Amino acid sequence: MVIIMQTGAPAPQVEAVIAAVRAAGFVPHPIYGVNKTVIAVVGDQTRQHLEAFESLPGVDSVTLIDKPYKLAYTRPDQSRDIVRVRDVEFGGDAVPVIAGPCAVESAEQVAETVESVIRAGARVLRGGAYKPRTSPYAFQGMKTEGLKLLAEARERHHIPVCTEVVDPRDVETVAEHCDILQIGTRNMQNFPLLTEVGKSGRAVLLKRGMASTIEDLLMAAEYVLSEGNERLLLCERGVRTFEPSTRYTLDLSAVAVIRRYSHLPILVDPSHATGHWWAVPAMAKAALAAGADGLVIEVHPRPKEAYCDGAQSLKCETFETLMAELKPIAAAVGRRL
Amino acid sequence: MVIIMQTGAPAPQVEAVIAAVRAAGFVPHPIYGVNKTVIAVVGDQTRQHLEAFESLPGVDSVTLIDKPYKLAYTRPDQSRDIVRVRDVEFGGDAVPVIAGPCAVESAEQVAETVESVIRAGARVLRGGAYKPRTSPYAFQGMKTEGLKLLAEARERHHIPVCTEVVDPRDVETVAEHCDILQIGTRNMQNFPLLTEVGKSGRAVLLKRGMASTIEDLLMAAEYVLSEGNERLLLCERGVRTFEPSTRYTLDLSAVAVIRRYSHLPILVDPSHATGHWWAVPAMAKAALAAGADGLVIEVHPRPKEAYCDGAQSLKCETFETLMAELKPIAAAVGRRL
Amino acid sequence: MVIIMQTGAPAPQVEAVIAAVRAAGFVPHPIYGVNKTVIAVVGDQTRQHLEAFESLPGVDSVTLIDKPYKLAYTRPDQSRDIVRVRDVEFGGDAVPVIAGPCAVESAEQVAETVESVIRAGARVLRGGAYKPRTSPYAFQGMKTEGLKLLAEARERHHIPVCTEVVDPRDVETVAEHCDILQIGTRNMQNFPLLTEVGKSGRAVLLKRGMASTIEDLLMAAEYVLSEGNERLLLCERGVRTFEPSTRYTLDLSAVAVIRRYSHLPILVDPSHATGHWWAVPAMAKAALAAGADGLVIEVHPRPKEAYCDGAQSLKCETFETLMAELKPIAAAVGRRL
Amino acid sequence: MVIIMQTGAPAPQVEAVIAAVRAAGFVPHPIYGVNKTVIAVVGDQTRQHLEAFESLPGVDSVTLIDKPYKLAYTRPDQSRDIVRVRDVEFGGDAVPVIAGPCAVESAEQVAETVESVIRAGARVLRGGAYKPRTSPYAFQGMKTEGLKLLAEARERHHIPVCTEVVDPRDVETVAEHCDILQIGTRNMQNFPLLTEVGKSGRAVLLKRGMASTIEDLLMAAEYVLSEGNERLLLCERGVRTFEPSTRYTLDLSAVAVIRRYSHLPILVDPSHATGHWWAVPAMAKAALAAGADGLVIEVHPRPKEAYCDGAQSLKCETFETLMAELKPIAAAVGRRL
Repeated sequence: MVIIMQTGAPAPQVEAVIAAVRAAGFVPHPIYGVNKTVIAVVGDQTRQHLEAFESLPGVDSVTLIDKPYKLAYTRPDQSRDIVRVRDVEFGGDAVPVIAGPCAVESAEQVAETVESVIRAGARVLRGGAYKPRTSPYAFQGMKTEGLKLLAEARERHHIPVCTEVVDPRDVETVAEHCDILQIGTRNMQNFPLLTEVGKSGRAVLLKRGMASTIEDLLMAAEYVLSEGNERLLLCERGVRTFEPSTRYTLDLSAVAVIRRYSHLPILVDPSHATGHWWAVPAMAKAALAAGADGLVIEVHPRPKEAYCDGAQSLKCETFETLMAELKPIAAAVGRRL
Repeated sequence: MVIIMQTGAPAPQVEAVIAAVRAAGFVPHPIYGVNKTVIAVVGDQTRQHLEAFESLPGVDSVTLIDKPYKLAYTRPDQSRDIVRVRDVEFGGDAVPVIAGPCAVESAEQVAETVESVIRAGARVLRGGAYKPRTSPYAFQGMKTEGLKLLAEARERHHIPVCTEVVDPRDVETVAEHCDILQIGTRNMQNFPLLTEVGKSGRAVLLKRGMASTIEDLLMAAEYVLSEGNERLLLCERGVRTFEPSTRYTLDLSAVAVIRRYSHLPILVDPSHATGHWWAVPAMAKAALAAGADGLVIEVHPRPKEAYCDGAQSLKCETFETLMAELKPIAAAVGRRL
Repeated sequence: MVIIMQTGAPAPQVEAVIAAVRAAGFVPHPIYGVNKTVIAVVGDQTRQHLEAFESLPGVDSVTLIDKPYKLAYTRPDQSRDIVRVRDVEFGGDAVPVIAGPCAVESAEQVAETVESVIRAGARVLRGGAYKPRTSPYAFQGMKTEGLKLLAEARERHHIPVCTEVVDPRDVETVAEHCDILQIGTRNMQNFPLLTEVGKSGRAVLLKRGMASTIEDLLMAAEYVLSEGNERLLLCERGVRTFEPSTRYTLDLSAVAVIRRYSHLPILVDPSHATGHWWAVPAMAKAALAAGADGLVIEVHPRPKEAYCDGAQSLKCETFETLMAELKPIAAAVGRRL
Repeated sequence: MVIIMQTGAPAPQVEAVIAAVRAAGFVPHPIYGVNKTVIAVVGDQTRQHLEAFESLPGVDSVTLIDKPYKLAYTRPDQSRDIVRVRDVEFGGDAVPVIAGPCAVESAEQVAETVESVIRAGARVLRGGAYKPRTSPYAFQGMKTEGLKLLAEARERHHIPVCTEVVDPRDVETVAEHCDILQIGTRNMQNFPLLTEVGKSGRAVLLKRGMASTIEDLLMAAEYVLSEGNERLLLCERGVRTFEPSTRYTLDLSAVAVIRRYSHLPILVDPSHATGHWWAVPAMAKAALAAGADGLVIEVHPRPKEAYCDGAQSLKCETFETLMAELKPIAAAVGRRL
């Protein structure tokens, strides 16, 4: 932490700040410049104890310079996690694709989709049984009925299943039926929910909040990791910006940043990010080339009949074509699907 | 809804879209321009049914033109709600100020603060017992102990209490101890939580998500309203932007927009928005002048000892001065504190 | 500046960075923590010399902690500028209102508007003769004809005139016809233009870029100030965010921030910020209450016939009503219009 | 355009709007819904004439639904431009890489860089002679001396040169010394400058404004195209968002959007977007995979000595490695460098 004093702050104010730093248990390093004094503070600070220094007389501003995440932070040996879900590995050479419909709608829809995406090369089935919808009048998911349909597909096709959980009271039930618990963008800072999935023992797919910095995402990861659950996958899915031509703005640089500052696998969801089926293939390719450790792609046999997010779903044929196009790109970056 | 066809889309594609609109139960109004065809669609559409049209061949884009919120939408007679909490009214001539510490920390802190803010003219006591913290290592609140301290202050001083709830499992307990259930910015789209507070019978203070549009906020309000709970207060508390000098960017235009498009009272929280105690008075005054129906202000007897958000808390004396300065502004806009 | 070394960076890397800091003429203050080393750097650094340190081996990141603006920075005695334009003063007790149409369209329009806004209490006439338009097909302004109409109004009514200049080649001509040269949001970082208006001797109204931080704005101010022109007015006019209900998001906190960190007067333009006539009065009042040193408001006798920005222009009557409503607010904050 | 009337707007208000639409020369199509009336307007509208409708009584809001750009808009046959600069083609199968230092600093620096980037496979040399710098105290470029150094390299190595122009008065001189005139992000809406480069006859590289929507970028393109200059290259270089870990947020979806809505080649600059040398390779690969028609990459023989933007410059060796890694990705998407 660096405490910057106001220009011309008198010596007693500087001394009072130095004393306050010491009183809080840290080591102050005052640096006296020509125009102003800066006090560097060494020690394992947490935000809540230290931002209070900003309220002291003569203080201009306080800057935290250290990363506040610890468990998610990159290891000294730079090793990266491999997260295993049944026979699928994330974070290694393979780049598994998670595919399926936005929402589980019927047994037929699930059956049709799972066969198609497996044939195309997807390694994990996704589908929403509990849907967090902006509108209370929108389809909220099939709930336990939907979970059962996913579990059936899982048994029949020996494919892991990823599904969203939105309520801490549902974590146990959802965990029984699936392999990866997804935390959606609207719940990235739903801390009771993070704590529950942290305790669940299931792998977790944590999507970045649409207004969350990468640091916020890694802090949310700490909630899961600090419960002892190390099978954690991060997912970039677009952030809110002023650009209206896509639903969100896919921040692919997050892949490079997370690979530099964390050992956790980072996946990319080009479907929710762009909101347009016609933009998904280009962004899936880009994500793969950028170093993503997995892709999450919405596929629906008949998008125009989808109960939600039809505009961003790929038809089965388009998904098949995309998977074929992704293969040489994976090879070009030394990986495989 | 307006469906815009691609330039030069052939007649059969246009006809197929018209047929699809009809099949979905709506009335299509095709308008044939020189270069392109546009199909206006009349009827009570919901997003999930209709965005699927974007996946039809020949469609360039689809624009929703109607407001998706209904219960929160301004009434034909333009009347605005008055929300009563004990003897305090929001939405009328008075502009009640909700004040208190970010977090409840001790009996002494609560006692000291409540006396001070009441003396200064605040009408509601706020204080967090459950704190949603970005970091799992930060103080998470005193929980039920904190609730009890708030309830004691309520009884002793006959002042309504506002406190945050972050977990649907806690709604009942929190509702027993307080008068206004606060939904924080990170939970604005925590739909199970919105549903529970909608059922609680308590007044609700719904804070805008830091990346939520005003439309998103009004859609979240629908979740509460559609449970039959009409005692709902909205709160602008800053949104995420690229500007780093304040913690968030306070969007005061939201006051004007919400007063135009909704009958719900709209409050403003300048403390969380700016993150700096020195910016709070100017923004509190601005909010009042803009037409806010209430203010939410953090006050702490000793900010530098605060367990959270000390940098944005006003000292008791500063709060007292601010309240004195707010009074003539309230009068100037035809209101009172 | 603070240089943060990577966790576990070996001693020779740390020493190489320290040597590089010294070689660049600065004084390094290494602080050796348990996990990592941080090097504070004292001296009058400029960004381009020092960010290069980020490319050295073992460096994690570099943070500039000092304000890069010098001439615009708040003075030790906290005094604030008073900028005089003819008999109008900005930065003192008065809060002058600059009013007029977006674009000069005809002699009649100017005559009608100037009389109306003076009657209502405006102190400066605004009007665009050169219009920077997003579309090349939109009305680009009356240019020199427009300037003459403004100059005539100025002579007849003894009112200062403010108008935009968009091309460094036009600065001399525009300066002949007006009292305040306006730099619009799209030109805030048009450095040749800033240099020319800096040399012009005319007062300058510098609008914040729609994607500029407050620091960027103050750096742009340095371009004008460093040419010796101290009659400089800053203007907040809204920034780009994800919120679509207003054209931009008015960042009123900028008023508080600039009053803290700079001695320059700060004005607010609620018309361009919101883009809706119905939101202008509320935001004008808010700006005044927040401490703005002036307001810039678009007024048009017949908005629906305006050549540009009709949606955000107040009718003359509405402007008159607003001015009457602003007066008590000004009084309430110890100022006058 | 769609004009949405307020709920319950009385018939005379609706009729007045319809009459106003007709009076402006357009064809109104009123659609009477159960709750509200919507008026679709057909014809070749421009924003300034029509947004004025928002000021009419009873109007809730006005939405423009048509694309306002015409020359930049995708052609009926979906063909895409090929822009030739000497023997280099943008927009075809090849994806030329433009490389070189941020700023021209010396003859040695240029000589060393040009040889290195040509050897690695770059097809165009870039280098800034006029630098638009946020700070007036930063290095502003070598100006004409820098242009001469670039022109010499061009002659010696038969490689086209791309350099920025920031002042309309310099366009002629800069055009004499280079092949591609670059318009930087801060000047994307510097309309006098766009007009001058439109008249120059030189190819133009138009960078997206850091707060510009893609539509704004295409409207800026109209300024160049409408002067008859069709050799126009667009460039995505990152937009301003709340994310602080990169200097800007690279919006790669812009590649997909522009390929859908325009026939102009779209390039990507990962260096300015990310601001970190370590993030450039991943984003360069992603851009190529996304369908970019060219890349702009900063290369400096000794980044730590760079006069500007050293933190984002690749060393010559790193650039060479990157080019080798890009080749198989280009092949995987059916293109070549």
